[in-house]
Amino acid sequence: MTTFENVSVEKQANVYFDGKVTSRTINFADGSHKTLGIMQIGLYQFSTHKAELMEILSGQVEVKINGENQWHLFQAGECFNIPANSGFEIHAIALTDYCCTFID
Amino acid sequence: MTTFENVSVEKQANVYFDGKVTSRTINFADGSHKTLGIMQIGLYQFSTHKAELMEILSGQVEVKINGENQWHLFQAGECFNIPANSGFEIHAIALTDYCCTFID
Repeated sequence: MTTFENVSVEKQANVYFDGKVTSRTINFADGSHKTLGIMQIGLYQFSTHKAELMEILSGQVEVKINGENQWHLFQAGECFNIPANSGFEIHAIALTDYCCTFID
Repeated sequence: MTTFENVSVEKQANVYFDGKVTSRTINFADGSHKTLGIMQIGLYQFSTHKAELMEILSGQVEVKINGENQWHLFQAGECFNIPANSGFEIHAIALTDYCCTFID
């Protein structure tokens, strides 16, 4: 799927780490939402409330989920899950375009 | 207006200047489209095909439109027009969140 149809988009960006990570919130008719974001090269830490599915649209990241010791490499076209009420460290090895789906 | 309703969003980001400027394309039911973008601090040059209305959502830029000598400062809440088939230099003085409307 290359476009999201019949959605609403919040105009103002979500900005993290002084703009090194930014995203737009996309709201779907069924009440769910996703964010489409960009990570500049760098190392970041995020926490989660809902579970999340992170899809790498372009770029490359290494990810370590809270409580795990292993870093996992993900490239364009690959995705990973983060449990609810958890978090992850993410190292953007290249400029990375991602889609985050929040899971109820 | 803080959200765009009943639109389609292209999943993949538009990436310029090695990711220092990125945007998402928003398509409207009437066939028009806008981009919602982020500029990292820096100096950039863009050319236009259609005329454009650039709205600064947050941040601060200086702009010089092709053929003009004067730089103009724009802040959050302000906007400026660029003619079709022209271009502009833009200096993002701060991380800048913008909305670009393409005008037929």
